[in-house]
Amino acid sequence: MPSKPAQPIARWMLLLLLGVSFVARAADELPSWNDGPSRQAIVDFVGAVTQEGGKDFVPPAERIAVFDNDGTLWSEQPMYFQVLFALDEVRRQAPQHPAWKEKQPFKAVLEGDHKALADSGMQGILAIVAATHSGVSTDEFIANARRWLASARHPRSHKPYTEMVFQPMLELLGYLRANGFKTYIVSGGEVAFMRAFAEEVYGIPPEQVIGTTLGSRFEDRNGQLSILRLPKLVHNDDGPGKPESIDSIIGRRPILAFGNSDGDLQMLQWTAAGKGPHFAGLVHHTDGKREWAYDRQSKVGRLDKALDMAKSKDWVVVDMATEWKRIYPFDQ
Amino acid sequence: MPSKPAQPIARWMLLLLLGVSFVARAADELPSWNDGPSRQAIVDFVGAVTQEGGKDFVPPAERIAVFDNDGTLWSEQPMYFQVLFALDEVRRQAPQHPAWKEKQPFKAVLEGDHKALADSGMQGILAIVAATHSGVSTDEFIANARRWLASARHPRSHKPYTEMVFQPMLELLGYLRANGFKTYIVSGGEVAFMRAFAEEVYGIPPEQVIGTTLGSRFEDRNGQLSILRLPKLVHNDDGPGKPESIDSIIGRRPILAFGNSDGDLQMLQWTAAGKGPHFAGLVHHTDGKREWAYDRQSKVGRLDKALDMAKSKDWVVVDMATEWKRIYPFDQ
Repeated sequence: MPSKPAQPIARWMLLLLLGVSFVARAADELPSWNDGPSRQAIVDFVGAVTQEGGKDFVPPAERIAVFDNDGTLWSEQPMYFQVLFALDEVRRQAPQHPAWKEKQPFKAVLEGDHKALADSGMQGILAIVAATHSGVSTDEFIANARRWLASARHPRSHKPYTEMVFQPMLELLGYLRANGFKTYIVSGGEVAFMRAFAEEVYGIPPEQVIGTTLGSRFEDRNGQLSILRLPKLVHNDDGPGKPESIDSIIGRRPILAFGNSDGDLQMLQWTAAGKGPHFAGLVHHTDGKREWAYDRQSKVGRLDKALDMAKSKDWVVVDMATEWKRIYPFDQ
Repeated sequence: MPSKPAQPIARWMLLLLLGVSFVARAADELPSWNDGPSRQAIVDFVGAVTQEGGKDFVPPAERIAVFDNDGTLWSEQPMYFQVLFALDEVRRQAPQHPAWKEKQPFKAVLEGDHKALADSGMQGILAIVAATHSGVSTDEFIANARRWLASARHPRSHKPYTEMVFQPMLELLGYLRANGFKTYIVSGGEVAFMRAFAEEVYGIPPEQVIGTTLGSRFEDRNGQLSILRLPKLVHNDDGPGKPESIDSIIGRRPILAFGNSDGDLQMLQWTAAGKGPHFAGLVHHTDGKREWAYDRQSKVGRLDKALDMAKSKDWVVVDMATEWKRIYPFDQ
């Protein structure tokens, strides 16, 4: 059998095999996504921006992907997990703060007075977060957060909060990184709290976590150095604060953004207004059985204006109930 | 000749060759550094933290290197280049601001009144920077900065400012990146100004540029989106502001830091106080012939306390005059 003529055929077969294996790989890497419109849109987008020489090719340095955290990468019901942490911290730290017994909203937390706590509103929550998240160094705070994350359990699932992350989104993060994307969190959560678990749980390193930020002060006490956290809100990373922090910290417009609530609207708008190819996606909480079903009327993670905008702009809206095979890593 | 016994020898020779080529590579990549104590300290440090299985090995994700910009990566005499830009911007923007003709410190700039400008002090400079760096979108501002950088010339060298970068430091940045480091700028310069050239000149992408920050506001005018820069200082990235921004934005302690002035002292201290291996270095401006010679008495880039600290802590102090073969890329 002559060997020369066989070579072009062999090369062609090799390319075919490589091509098949590439397409297969995309499906393999998103195994918890049903073959629905959202997975198709993701795979099409990633295929387009990574195709060298293609009209939509985006150089790796510009493949910035931003994700909200609460409700987008992990659950946020019955309340933002960080608020549950702050409430636990009030109880844990109470012995060092005897005045809290008589001072709202701390009194309400210590007495389990849900009505008084609810009445204190967002101002009350912010006061609790500021008090429980400051007065210590960043290192100490992260140690506190990690201790809580290791021991606390979600009231309904009885699982650690870090297991209540969305398996399909973990796969999406990995799929994007495998395709040269840099994945960021841009979230209303406080930045150090998210850094306490983002690298281990999401594979997102601290420098790619952007969030609500407290003031801090470098302290040098006879050569003992620390960064002291102050009870002062420096940046509220919600709504318009998201494109503002993206501009200030990343300095580049993302080409992909995922959120789940009206707090993500401006980040999605900003991403979708980019000149080149772009992808704006919403996780829609439609699964009352496996997770929670809520949108326009919810107090936590309200999705109303952003849902209208998504429909009018043809953004991708992920229907959790029909598009996700699994919700959590522990689901079978 | 039996082939089996030759194999171990061949393997040994291969390892030897690889070893020699590795050491040669380190020298090749820092060709503008004389074989002095600073280059040796750099090569030793990088060798130690990259040696897998070695006691000082640092995983790539933790190889964070931070560099001041003015006086560390490029020159800063006779005045910080960004201030020269701001003064040129006052003249360029003056027709749109008729009130500046009668208002200090703008009047002093427009009339070339050096004494009145000097009398306005740091407050005057800050007023000029705030006025000339705000009121436009980030995109517009970066376009302004790039236009200036393309046309302005340094008063002494008559070269573009972006050519007055230190060749040995460009080599150091590349050498660190080739060894798995992530290189950051952490500088008193305003962040968008530095982003206008950092990627092209230093190979440092926008998301690794940290600096002094102005407030901003996301604007949506009938669907036309922009990030408007406000004349409000949000973060002064100097002195203690450097470890504060490192903590807030990177969220990880650097293992290598380079500065050149007292404004870098806390960043160097913070880096040097890390638990693992660390490297703190100062560029000492000792070369009055090829660059400028200044330290304890200089108004720009004063190096006094940090020089004392460096001596007492055994930090690396680079003697530009004796340790650098070349200063600028255009030097022969």
